Amino acid sequence: MSIKSQFSSFWCDYSTERTVRVQRVWIAWIYRVLQLLLLFGYVFVYVIYVKKGYRENEEVVSSVSIKVKGVAVTNKEQHPWTWDPADYVVPPQEMNSFFVMTNFIMTRNQKQGTCPESPNFATCKTGDNCTKGYSSPRAHGVQTGRCVDFNKTLKTCEVHAWCDVEKNEAIPNPALLSAAEGFTVLIKNQVTFPMFNLKRHNIPANVTTVNLSTCIFHPKSSPHCPVFRLGDIVNQTGENFQKMAVLGGVIGIQVTWDCNLHHHTCLPTYSFIQLEGGSQSQEVAPGYNFRFSHWFMNKENITRMLIKAFGIRFDVMVSGYVSCFQNHFFFSI
Amino acid sequence: MSIKSQFSSFWCDYSTERTVRVQRVWIAWIYRVLQLLLLFGYVFVYVIYVKKGYRENEEVVSSVSIKVKGVAVTNKEQHPWTWDPADYVVPPQEMNSFFVMTNFIMTRNQKQGTCPESPNFATCKTGDNCTKGYSSPRAHGVQTGRCVDFNKTLKTCEVHAWCDVEKNEAIPNPALLSAAEGFTVLIKNQVTFPMFNLKRHNIPANVTTVNLSTCIFHPKSSPHCPVFRLGDIVNQTGENFQKMAVLGGVIGIQVTWDCNLHHHTCLPTYSFIQLEGGSQSQEVAPGYNFRFSHWFMNKENITRMLIKAFGIRFDVMVSGYVSCFQNHFFFSI
Amino acid sequence: MSIKSQFSSFWCDYSTERTVRVQRVWIAWIYRVLQLLLLFGYVFVYVIYVKKGYRENEEVVSSVSIKVKGVAVTNKEQHPWTWDPADYVVPPQEMNSFFVMTNFIMTRNQKQGTCPESPNFATCKTGDNCTKGYSSPRAHGVQTGRCVDFNKTLKTCEVHAWCDVEKNEAIPNPALLSAAEGFTVLIKNQVTFPMFNLKRHNIPANVTTVNLSTCIFHPKSSPHCPVFRLGDIVNQTGENFQKMAVLGGVIGIQVTWDCNLHHHTCLPTYSFIQLEGGSQSQEVAPGYNFRFSHWFMNKENITRMLIKAFGIRFDVMVSGYVSCFQNHFFFSI
Repeated sequence: MSIKSQFSSFWCDYSTERTVRVQRVWIAWIYRVLQLLLLFGYVFVYVIYVKKGYRENEEVVSSVSIKVKGVAVTNKEQHPWTWDPADYVVPPQEMNSFFVMTNFIMTRNQKQGTCPESPNFATCKTGDNCTKGYSSPRAHGVQTGRCVDFNKTLKTCEVHAWCDVEKNEAIPNPALLSAAEGFTVLIKNQVTFPMFNLKRHNIPANVTTVNLSTCIFHPKSSPHCPVFRLGDIVNQTGENFQKMAVLGGVIGIQVTWDCNLHHHTCLPTYSFIQLEGGSQSQEVAPGYNFRFSHWFMNKENITRMLIKAFGIRFDVMVSGYVSCFQNHFFFSI
Repeated sequence: MSIKSQFSSFWCDYSTERTVRVQRVWIAWIYRVLQLLLLFGYVFVYVIYVKKGYRENEEVVSSVSIKVKGVAVTNKEQHPWTWDPADYVVPPQEMNSFFVMTNFIMTRNQKQGTCPESPNFATCKTGDNCTKGYSSPRAHGVQTGRCVDFNKTLKTCEVHAWCDVEKNEAIPNPALLSAAEGFTVLIKNQVTFPMFNLKRHNIPANVTTVNLSTCIFHPKSSPHCPVFRLGDIVNQTGENFQKMAVLGGVIGIQVTWDCNLHHHTCLPTYSFIQLEGGSQSQEVAPGYNFRFSHWFMNKENITRMLIKAFGIRFDVMVSGYVSCFQNHFFFSI
Repeated sequence: MSIKSQFSSFWCDYSTERTVRVQRVWIAWIYRVLQLLLLFGYVFVYVIYVKKGYRENEEVVSSVSIKVKGVAVTNKEQHPWTWDPADYVVPPQEMNSFFVMTNFIMTRNQKQGTCPESPNFATCKTGDNCTKGYSSPRAHGVQTGRCVDFNKTLKTCEVHAWCDVEKNEAIPNPALLSAAEGFTVLIKNQVTFPMFNLKRHNIPANVTTVNLSTCIFHPKSSPHCPVFRLGDIVNQTGENFQKMAVLGGVIGIQVTWDCNLHHHTCLPTYSFIQLEGGSQSQEVAPGYNFRFSHWFMNKENITRMLIKAFGIRFDVMVSGYVSCFQNHFFFSI
C-alpha cells in the first residue's frame, strides 16, 4: 500500500460512507442542526458568556471634571491659617485625578546659600569627610567640602542648598488638615459610546441645582448623587480616613457605566478601592507625599517656602459596558 | 435495555455508520472541506469582520506633547494686561491634556484674617445664628461665632479665611480672553506598535520647519498639519467657541492611527468631540472651572491673588489600528 | 425534479447515511472525539495561542506614585543656584508621569508694559508695518502700532507684553542641569486584578528600608529594585542622556506584571522606550519644552520670572497579564 493510499485510508476510514438517497431526511436535518448547535454552543458559551461578548467592554470616550469644596484651619504656633481648595489641591487641575493635601511639613523663608546638611546623610568630623561637589541622592544640597557645626554636639558637611534645609521633624499626627474628612467633591463625568452614538452624563437632566448642593453620595440611600464626602470615600475602601491622612495614600474611584440600549436612561455606579497607603501600606516608603514650593521676592532676593505635602490622591477610573444584544451582533453570525 | 446502552443508542443513532472503503473518495473530501469551510466561515465572519480582527485595536504606546501659542490682552479697570501661555496654561504641562484659560474672576490682595462671609451661605441677625468652628462645605472660611456687617443692609457670619472673600460677581460675558479663539496648538504624537516593531510620528520627516510655522489644520485642505487653531477645534464639534469660553468646557481631540503594514507610511486622522460644557451642557454646575492662587510676600506677610479660572480643557486621545492581514494571523489558524 | 428536492438532494447528498445500529461503537466514539478535537484545536490554537487567551491582558487597576531625589547646582553668571525636586519637577505631582527639568532659559524681572518685539516676528521700518491690536501666533505680545528701536541697527514693532520679552538666545549646551543624569526615582506601583481579587505591590514585603535606600535598578543584577537612576533609564532606550537633556524628550517606563495564579508571588518587569526627542528626534520642533512662571509682588507691582524649561518627561505605563489557566476558563468551554 502506498503512503498516499495509507493516508487516504486513514483520512477516510472513519468518515466516508455510502451515500444513500434518503428514506430518512429528518435524520439528516437533525444531524445538521446538532452540528450547528455545537458550533453556536461554543460561540454562546465561550464568546458571549465567558468573554462577556453580550456586555461589551465598550471603547468609551470619557471626560471627568472635579470640584473640591471645603476649608480647614490649622493652628501651628498659635497662627490660625485657613486652607481652601486653591491651596490644598495641587496641581489645581488634572485630567482624571485630584490630590487633597491632608498633612504637611512647612519650611519657611529658605534662601540660596550654604548651611550644614541634615545629620541623616552627612555627619563629619573634619573636612576630609566631605567632598566638594558631591551630593548623595537623598541630600538637600551639594557639598562645599567643609565640615561645620550642625548644633552644639554634631558636625555635618556644609552644602550649597536652599538654606536652612528642611528639618527632619516628626510627621504631625493627627494630620493638620484632619478636617479634610468633611470636604466634598463633585465629580462630573460625561461618556460617549462612539459605536452606538450614545452620550450620557452622570448628572441626569432632572437633577436641579438645589439637589446637587444638598445631596451626598451614599451607596444605598443616594447611589446617584455625584457629590462625595472624602471621608465616606475612604471609609468605603475599608480604610480609616484619619489614619490615612497622616502619611497620605491613593484611592481609586471607579465609575462603571452599564448601559442597556433598550432602556434609554443609564446611570453609573460608583465603587472605591484602596491603591496605596493606609493600613495595607508597605512598611517601606509608605503613603503618598511630595514637595512643592512658593517662591517669593524679598528686597530683590528670592526666598521660598517649601511644603512637604502628605495627602490623598483620588484617581477616577471610568469604564463602560453596553449590556444589550446589538442587532449587528446577531446578523453577523 | 440498560441505561448505558440507551445512551449509547442515543449517541450513535444519528452518527454511526457502516464504514465502507471508498468507492467515492471525492465525496469524503468534499465533506471534510465543507466542514472546514463552516469553521473558517465562523472565524472570518465573526472574529475578523465583526470583531475587526483584521484591524486590530493594537496595543499602542503613545506619547503626546503639546505647545500652545498666542497672546491676549485683557483690559479690566483700564489696566491692559497681557496673557501668554506661561500664565493661561494651567498646570504648565500635562501628559495627554492641556487647559487654556478663557475667562476668570480675580480676587487680589487676600490676607489671612477674619471678615464677613459671602451672603450666599451665612446671613445672620445675631451671633446665635453663627457657630464657632463651623464651616459649610461651600463656605470660604470657618466661622468665628460673631455676626458682622457685610454691607449697610446685610449681616453675615464672620469667618476666618483669606480676606476679603471672593465676591459673588457675575461671570464676565463675553469671556475676557476671547482672543483664545485664535490661539494655536502644535500637537506632537509619536506612536509605537510594539508587536510589529513599528514607530511613527505625526510630523512626517518631509515636513520642514517653515511648513509647520505656517500651516493650520483643516479637515479637507490640510488634514495632516499638526497645528490646530483652538477656535477651529471647538467649531468642528458643533459648538461655538465664544459661548463655550464664558463658562468653560472639555473637548476631546481624537488621534487615530490606521497603519497598513504593506504601505510603510501611515499618518493619523484627527477628529474632535464635545465632552463637557457648551450648548449641550447640563443646567447644573455647567462648564469647567477651578481656582488657583499666586502667593506673594509683602513686608513679611503672605498675601495671595486668587483666580477662578474658566476655560477649555483639551484631552488628547490616541488609538491605533493595524489594518493589514498579518502573517502570523494566517499561519496560526 | 423540483427545486426543493434538488436542494434537498444537494444538502443530503454527502451527509445522510443509512443508520446502522452499531457493530462498531468505537468508530462512532472516535468520530465524535475527532470532531471535538477539531473544535478544541481551533479554540486552543487561535483563541489561546494567538490571542494569548491563556495570558489574558487583564483589566488591571493600577496606581503609580513617584519620588524623585537629587540636587544640581547651576552656575549662571557666577551665582551658584541649587535646584531640588520641589523646583525641577513641574508640576510637583502627576498621576502616571513626572517631568524633570534638565535645561532652561530664564528671563527675570518681567513687567507688564510695552517694549520692542523680538526681531524674529516683527521687524519694521515705520509704524505702517505694525498693526495696532495684531498679534501673530508666535509673538510675545499684542502690537501697539508703533515701530521702535530694538537695538542700534534694528527696529521692531512695539508690543504690549511682559517686558522685556524673552531673548532669542542659544539653548545652553551642555544642559545646565546635566547632573540630572545621577538623580534617582522611586516608583511605587500597586496593581489589583479585580477579576481574581489579587493585589500586588512592586515593593515586596521582604524589602527593608535599608535595601530601598541603597539599591539601584539594573536589568540583570537588580531587576526588582524600584529605584531607578535617570541616566540608566535613558541609556536603556539607546539614547544618550546628556544629548537628550539639552532639548528634552519623552521616555516611557513600561511596568509589566505577569502573574501566575498558582505561584502567589509575582513581581513586575521594567522596560524603557524612547517616545520623543533624542537622536531619533524629528528635525522640526524637536525635544520637549514648555514655559512656566513665578509671579512676584514688588512694591505693589507684579513682576514675573519666566522659565522656558527643557527636560525629560517620563510616562509610566502599567500593563498586567494573568498567565495561568483559570478554572472558569476550562469549565466554560
